[in-house]
Amino acid sequence: MSIITLTSDFGAADWFVGAMKGVILGIAPTAVIVDISHGIASGDVRAGAFALAASCRFFPRRAIHVAVVDPGVGSRRGAIAVQTADYVFVGPDNGVLSLALRGEAIKSIHRLENQRLFLKPVSRTFHGRDIFAPVAAHLSQGTPCEELGPARRDFQKLDWPRPGKHQGGWRGEVVFIDHFGNAITNIRNEWLDLPEASISFRGKTLCPLGPFYQSVAAGRPLAVPGSSGFLEIAINGGSAAQKLGLQVGSAIAVSPGRTRRTKRKRDRA
Amino acid sequence: MSIITLTSDFGAADWFVGAMKGVILGIAPTAVIVDISHGIASGDVRAGAFALAASCRFFPRRAIHVAVVDPGVGSRRGAIAVQTADYVFVGPDNGVLSLALRGEAIKSIHRLENQRLFLKPVSRTFHGRDIFAPVAAHLSQGTPCEELGPARRDFQKLDWPRPGKHQGGWRGEVVFIDHFGNAITNIRNEWLDLPEASISFRGKTLCPLGPFYQSVAAGRPLAVPGSSGFLEIAINGGSAAQKLGLQVGSAIAVSPGRTRRTKRKRDRA
Amino acid sequence: MSIITLTSDFGAADWFVGAMKGVILGIAPTAVIVDISHGIASGDVRAGAFALAASCRFFPRRAIHVAVVDPGVGSRRGAIAVQTADYVFVGPDNGVLSLALRGEAIKSIHRLENQRLFLKPVSRTFHGRDIFAPVAAHLSQGTPCEELGPARRDFQKLDWPRPGKHQGGWRGEVVFIDHFGNAITNIRNEWLDLPEASISFRGKTLCPLGPFYQSVAAGRPLAVPGSSGFLEIAINGGSAAQKLGLQVGSAIAVSPGRTRRTKRKRDRA
Repeated sequence: MSIITLTSDFGAADWFVGAMKGVILGIAPTAVIVDISHGIASGDVRAGAFALAASCRFFPRRAIHVAVVDPGVGSRRGAIAVQTADYVFVGPDNGVLSLALRGEAIKSIHRLENQRLFLKPVSRTFHGRDIFAPVAAHLSQGTPCEELGPARRDFQKLDWPRPGKHQGGWRGEVVFIDHFGNAITNIRNEWLDLPEASISFRGKTLCPLGPFYQSVAAGRPLAVPGSSGFLEIAINGGSAAQKLGLQVGSAIAVSPGRTRRTKRKRDRA
Repeated sequence: MSIITLTSDFGAADWFVGAMKGVILGIAPTAVIVDISHGIASGDVRAGAFALAASCRFFPRRAIHVAVVDPGVGSRRGAIAVQTADYVFVGPDNGVLSLALRGEAIKSIHRLENQRLFLKPVSRTFHGRDIFAPVAAHLSQGTPCEELGPARRDFQKLDWPRPGKHQGGWRGEVVFIDHFGNAITNIRNEWLDLPEASISFRGKTLCPLGPFYQSVAAGRPLAVPGSSGFLEIAINGGSAAQKLGLQVGSAIAVSPGRTRRTKRKRDRA
Repeated sequence: MSIITLTSDFGAADWFVGAMKGVILGIAPTAVIVDISHGIASGDVRAGAFALAASCRFFPRRAIHVAVVDPGVGSRRGAIAVQTADYVFVGPDNGVLSLALRGEAIKSIHRLENQRLFLKPVSRTFHGRDIFAPVAAHLSQGTPCEELGPARRDFQKLDWPRPGKHQGGWRGEVVFIDHFGNAITNIRNEWLDLPEASISFRGKTLCPLGPFYQSVAAGRPLAVPGSSGFLEIAINGGSAAQKLGLQVGSAIAVSPGRTRRTKRKRDRA
């Protein structure tokens, strides 16, 4: 029995994901198919890459992770399968796999070119169904990656923003807004060994650091060490994105020090 | 083989539900995971409680029901597993399990404190993934509830509105607005043995009682004995919430008598 | 092991789909349940019919396809199971199955009237849970269609718009708007053997024909042979429905010839 995960921007309104599952089950009847998300914003390769990176390592070894956020479907963009120590990743070679692959020990990269493994005819607008689903299903049935197509040395990376040190703290930016309106940054939780810190945005102090959402009063902002491994800016009981005007790309800074203590007292008052 | 159901406010856009499933399958590879809903409004414990109560009894015996609507995640709110005659319910001890438990024969209540059963490290913002998913998976593999942590006598209840008798009929309120805009009340279908009745809202007659949605003309309101066991106010082909201004907490009354017959004739005209 | 697919307008916010799955698993514990879509617009039988028709044939033989877009639930509309060479289709007899059945070799049609196969009591507002789910589960366990109820000769068809020839090309209309805002028409891909063509709407040339979304510049419209087998009008990186004002029922024409070439040059400029 093997697990195939699916991440896409196909949404819930149409039949796209269902058709992919039908194709998979026709080839691999005992596959366990798990949706990671199909609510990635249309064509947002970066958001898809982040969602996959944030979740893939919670699956057992040998899972096959398929990610299809693919605005270039049908064009000459490549399609790849990347075998790592723990998983196989399958998708278009447009960067959607690249954040997840940062944390993996890569063993091989192959282009998907073996048409015997595809659905026929292959459309030029839905490779999720016609290429990625059947290839993942064949992999789950034991087809080795070498049979998929020619080996490659590398794959497409995303130009992902790098955080940096800044005045004794860190500067970074928002990289994902989640369903709750939490603004996830690119600043790693483990860098935050400060006992106290404050987060600023557009030159103004925004909020203190706190351990969990309800550690500030209802409606108040805070930054928490997030479950995806990165600092996130939240509002207890509300949407930080909406209330604080944060969006993907918003530059933020984390500063050590007393501002937060003062701030926090007011929060609690 | 065992069934694990999931109810949450995690939405469909992110990877939260997928990560929970990965954790479950790592511990219980043959678990059948069923989503009840992940579209509960953010932090709406009452809505999550109602969704679980309305659906849990349709699952076969021995299903494990996990509900994670958990605005207090990471705080000192407890986490529990409740063994009943038919099921185990797992979630934060904030009332989200309490409506479902009303109809169950409770056998034991245990706090989730055995950290050997948790994912490590446990975040303070995503206990769905780090505590509830692995605990449910271990339960499905045969871990007895006694091993989860200390036994408790009681669990958190919701302050759920009680309906009452009123002028020969009933008064109650809207407790849930569903996807179709139907306004589900807290008045039980079985109390409605009246051959005829009318429903009023803000002192005005709103609609008659009818057996099914199309028993009134298109666009007209009616109240039907709903599939969740409670009277619901609907519009044939439309959203009662939107068109009639109903929302959770709206007080309504059910009166026996002739108003409805007159009303219904106009509906049909 | 058998596959049961579900298509409905039940949405993701409530427990309706979860309750159906609980009922199915209670009868058929090893059934593999696959969601095709639950995001069909409320009561939109035509959209549900199209989604099912566009996806059903991607499932392996013997799958049982359940479609519940059922505004007439509880009224006297019939409920049917249709055995074809490859599948069984189950749903209300309101046309929701009819587009899928166009491409199938029909072997029998039976009314669902055998109450021994239903959940009890049967509500008059949720036959998805009380009739269609248990019937599909029993079918997957080997109950023959003959036991479901009396045989019928025919089933309800939708009054689906027919395309026609027009000035050397085709005239048709938009029949579905997908999640990306692509406007799917009723003009079959295989009719488009023209090397070049242009699509017009309201008497004006709208866009050229192209092989895939990125074959025009970002933000520009085009028509592509769609993955559902029909011509679709799209915008590279945007929503054709929103930007071009297309909706279900919009009349469009496909004309052979040079307009497109001229147009395309401008697109690329």
